[in-house]
Amino acid sequence: MKLKKNERRQAIQQAIDNNPFITDNELCEMFQVSIQTIRLDRTHLNIPELRKRVKLVAEHNYDQIKSMEANEVIGDLVQLKPNHTATSMIEITTDSVFSKSSIARGHILFAQANSLCVALIHNPTVLTQESNIKFLDKVKLNDTVKAEAKVIKQTDKHYFIEVNSYVKDNLVFKGNFKMFYISEDEFNG
Amino acid sequence: MKLKKNERRQAIQQAIDNNPFITDNELCEMFQVSIQTIRLDRTHLNIPELRKRVKLVAEHNYDQIKSMEANEVIGDLVQLKPNHTATSMIEITTDSVFSKSSIARGHILFAQANSLCVALIHNPTVLTQESNIKFLDKVKLNDTVKAEAKVIKQTDKHYFIEVNSYVKDNLVFKGNFKMFYISEDEFNG
Repeated sequence: MKLKKNERRQAIQQAIDNNPFITDNELCEMFQVSIQTIRLDRTHLNIPELRKRVKLVAEHNYDQIKSMEANEVIGDLVQLKPNHTATSMIEITTDSVFSKSSIARGHILFAQANSLCVALIHNPTVLTQESNIKFLDKVKLNDTVKAEAKVIKQTDKHYFIEVNSYVKDNLVFKGNFKMFYISEDEFNG
Repeated sequence: MKLKKNERRQAIQQAIDNNPFITDNELCEMFQVSIQTIRLDRTHLNIPELRKRVKLVAEHNYDQIKSMEANEVIGDLVQLKPNHTATSMIEITTDSVFSKSSIARGHILFAQANSLCVALIHNPTVLTQESNIKFLDKVKLNDTVKAEAKVIKQTDKHYFIEVNSYVKDNLVFKGNFKMFYISEDEFNG
């Protein structure tokens, strides 16, 4: 059953509150209305488009990074809990695909995951030492890739991080990273 | 013992013939003269600078690539024997390093190695499936990285490729890549 305009707008507001990264297309399907209607509803509700929402959410996270400059993160850092978890989103543009096939190039997904691992570690000196990665499904032009990184183990020299990258709910990339760091005690002592 | 000017110029010509990728700095050490002298000698001999020599050597290899566009290779493709071996060179510029440390970012070395694996396979459809990589030593701003790729094994769906990347003689990166391809028989049959 379709909702009335005001009910729908309320529901859209709630859907975006629950998941700021929901796309206009997903909202179309959810409420069985056209994309124009969703755009009008967002404008009325004063909710910016997805790309801007991602940037707004990401802004607050960059201050927490210690290992690199904010503009060195590849993708938008939409979540960061230093030394625990981090999430970034990236939109696959024409620069990132093979021109023949419009399939995303491997090093783009690797760069997103690897820079997320560096950003995640709350330490001034962090370097990648080893990585085992799998490309599980094709990523296409205009897809949005969400990479989720999680610290699995920490020793006095290394962090072990697992990254899973998704397009919608589809796991497209999986990586394990062994990251070297110099603990600050060593600098000071 | 230092050589006389004409002997030295002959010897420089020979050294560059033997190894077109020798740097001016290496020639300085070899002949115990200043970099200005080496540059003058090269000008006299009509031998372009290293960067240009690399591009000249690379030019001839791009016609042999089937899996991607020439400009999609990351680095200069200085050697290619399709389905067997390939070599590329890349100079580490400011865009490729962490601004804090001037150390090359991991995804740059990965991109060089991974795109070399794609270029190496003489097939229109090639995708990376798995990769295990190790970063063995720091690569710095202005270093030149030479990546050497070699096919280790081939099955009806995959190529297994080993890549070793060097700065001068120092192994800085090692990668094993499992590359998926669609054989042309499948397209036609």
